[in-house]
Amino acid sequence: MSKMYKEMTKEELLNEQNELTKRYDEFKARGLKLDMSRGKPGKDQLDLSAGLNDVKDYVADGLDVRNYGILDGIPSCKKLFADLMGVDAKNVIIGPNASLTLMFDYISQCYTHGAGSTPWCKLDEVKFLCPVPGYDRHFTICEHFGIKMINVPMKADGPDMDVIEELIKDESVKGMFCVPKYSNPQGITFSDEVVERIAAMKPAAKDFRLIWDNAYCIHDLDDNGDELLNIFDILPKYDNEDMVIEVCSTSKITFPGAGVSALIASDNNIAAIKKRLNAQTISYDKMNQHRHVEFFKNADGVLEHMKKHAAILKPKFDIVLKHLENELGGKGIANWFNPKGGYFISLDVMPGCAKRTGELCKEAGVTLTTVGATYPYGVDPDDSNIRIAPSFPPVDELDIAAELLCICVRLACVEKFLG
Amino acid sequence: MSKMYKEMTKEELLNEQNELTKRYDEFKARGLKLDMSRGKPGKDQLDLSAGLNDVKDYVADGLDVRNYGILDGIPSCKKLFADLMGVDAKNVIIGPNASLTLMFDYISQCYTHGAGSTPWCKLDEVKFLCPVPGYDRHFTICEHFGIKMINVPMKADGPDMDVIEELIKDESVKGMFCVPKYSNPQGITFSDEVVERIAAMKPAAKDFRLIWDNAYCIHDLDDNGDELLNIFDILPKYDNEDMVIEVCSTSKITFPGAGVSALIASDNNIAAIKKRLNAQTISYDKMNQHRHVEFFKNADGVLEHMKKHAAILKPKFDIVLKHLENELGGKGIANWFNPKGGYFISLDVMPGCAKRTGELCKEAGVTLTTVGATYPYGVDPDDSNIRIAPSFPPVDELDIAAELLCICVRLACVEKFLG
Repeated sequence: MSKMYKEMTKEELLNEQNELTKRYDEFKARGLKLDMSRGKPGKDQLDLSAGLNDVKDYVADGLDVRNYGILDGIPSCKKLFADLMGVDAKNVIIGPNASLTLMFDYISQCYTHGAGSTPWCKLDEVKFLCPVPGYDRHFTICEHFGIKMINVPMKADGPDMDVIEELIKDESVKGMFCVPKYSNPQGITFSDEVVERIAAMKPAAKDFRLIWDNAYCIHDLDDNGDELLNIFDILPKYDNEDMVIEVCSTSKITFPGAGVSALIASDNNIAAIKKRLNAQTISYDKMNQHRHVEFFKNADGVLEHMKKHAAILKPKFDIVLKHLENELGGKGIANWFNPKGGYFISLDVMPGCAKRTGELCKEAGVTLTTVGATYPYGVDPDDSNIRIAPSFPPVDELDIAAELLCICVRLACVEKFLG
Repeated sequence: MSKMYKEMTKEELLNEQNELTKRYDEFKARGLKLDMSRGKPGKDQLDLSAGLNDVKDYVADGLDVRNYGILDGIPSCKKLFADLMGVDAKNVIIGPNASLTLMFDYISQCYTHGAGSTPWCKLDEVKFLCPVPGYDRHFTICEHFGIKMINVPMKADGPDMDVIEELIKDESVKGMFCVPKYSNPQGITFSDEVVERIAAMKPAAKDFRLIWDNAYCIHDLDDNGDELLNIFDILPKYDNEDMVIEVCSTSKITFPGAGVSALIASDNNIAAIKKRLNAQTISYDKMNQHRHVEFFKNADGVLEHMKKHAAILKPKFDIVLKHLENELGGKGIANWFNPKGGYFISLDVMPGCAKRTGELCKEAGVTLTTVGATYPYGVDPDDSNIRIAPSFPPVDELDIAAELLCICVRLACVEKFLG
């Protein structure tokens, strides 16, 4: 069963194709409609936070949270995030329901006002480094502002630092988006060495900004989660505090559409952001901040809550990984990581076979993340990466979808070998 | 008692000063701490919307509002605002808790991407027209983006259209902020003629944008409120639909810190804004949108709710106006409007006396909106305008604060006459 495809004879390949097509057609005949495209929590996960809607009082830290005021978040909510992220509350700004907005708005601010520098809109060219595969919404922000994206390969312990250290000698390279823990889509956590090298970077651009999107900071799949160094503990050693903007949110802790986000930054950056916020808003939704504090009580409350998510998610990851191992293991046609947390499994199939796999899945009723979306401009140069999002479908549907996906991968690869 | 100050002899003025100083000192001795600075609803107004926090279900229009998705607002909430504002739901985007953010983000978008035109950041100069006195947060947005502000005088029925029609011949004049109903701070509602002339404008700048901040669209003080023409009914006649961006919110309907805002615009503008939103957010807070729909049921529900606000606010406006009439009437030292809605009373004192009035108030424990804040760059060229915000303090405190304010106005004017 696990003969390498490249060692198969034409006849063996045709046999394989024959068998796979039979299985594929059986699935297809079932008229499936399954979705593994979005990193969306399932309904059972959302129900874990039903208690949020029980919070009715409106006094927090002696303030009426219903009224105007408090630009950077209510003190109790700032403390909650500060404790979770291991930083001072003064370095936290509580944001709207999506950390994506905090990132977009910060890049927009750099574009219109610079980062203690010439506004980026006044420059001929601005470039960002993009570890790939990566998160499509980071790429969309760059594209929106006409920022030229440069691919940087991901290694097993984070982005290739040799490449990065070379590229940042170019003064027009102004920044980089990272998901340092359980990266999207690979689930890779940056090693201590990588975090240290990142914190020590000396980019030619004095206004280089690293967007540290810690979306999955506490999103372990079990008690055996990865540890990520707190970059803000290391930055002072290199006099680099102003280089990093960290964001996180409760999107995958409470409600994706009605959570609370937070931004963590140096004193200088916090001051610059508050100056903009003072023109942009009267305050973010303090009632929702208060709801979250009342519901969780403290950082330990959040961590306890995350164990309930893990209990729901772990079996979903396991079933996908089981199929990958069973169907694709030892055939030399696919690689993947076994992530210890996050929301995705990243599957690298034989070059030139990802799009075809996506097509085959679609025809049989399984929606995958658009192939290519994990690369800037939607172009995967190897046509190899497939992002699997196991969180939303129920386990029984995943069981079907994952098996079918594997069949499609194999079919696509056989086709490729048969030319 | 109501002799014109300018007709008084020096002796009469000294007597007046003497009497006023006695009254002033009596107030001062009471160690007051009263605030008429912010257009903030009072606690009793916020309590009217306590029912918002009773909404616990999470299914709206067949969608789970807790999860990702729905960029422009849930259909039922779009319909609610469409009905209130007399527009099609397809021309509505539901925003975050503050319409200020919708305005800032739109100007930011024009700055970075233009409005179907050259991005404003690429131009040497961008100017906005500012009807004065006006809303300081509009001025702050302009200042943030380095937009040069040009004062346009307000008349009794809206901004001086002769002046505007002349100024828009300058191609670098790219826009104007307006509060067309119960203007901030004067409480003036634009007449039908003014709205028609605005809708008919033919600015030299093809990307001229009028920000129609309809913050007080349904905020009457009694059944006898002003009527404002719906500018979107008139714009098509002049082929000018793309010129106007309207915003409104529930900030002064439900909770200022946790309400819902809306943006109304032409098909072209909605498409351009959605394109940006697609990079900026995964959606605004749909749970809060749903709460508002469930709480109000429909547009009539909102209008009924507004009557409860009016019942609380009207006595507050009345007591301030009573003191203004009693203390300042017939002395030739101050003018004001009797607004039929909104959140402010605008008092124009004798030129050169507003700042001094503010100082005297402050010394005696009454905080006013910073004098000058109703003008661009914080500079009232006549040092004449004082914005009174009667909503937040209880009636008994307002009674004291308004009397003291009048004494301070009179003292400042007497001082001025005495040189």
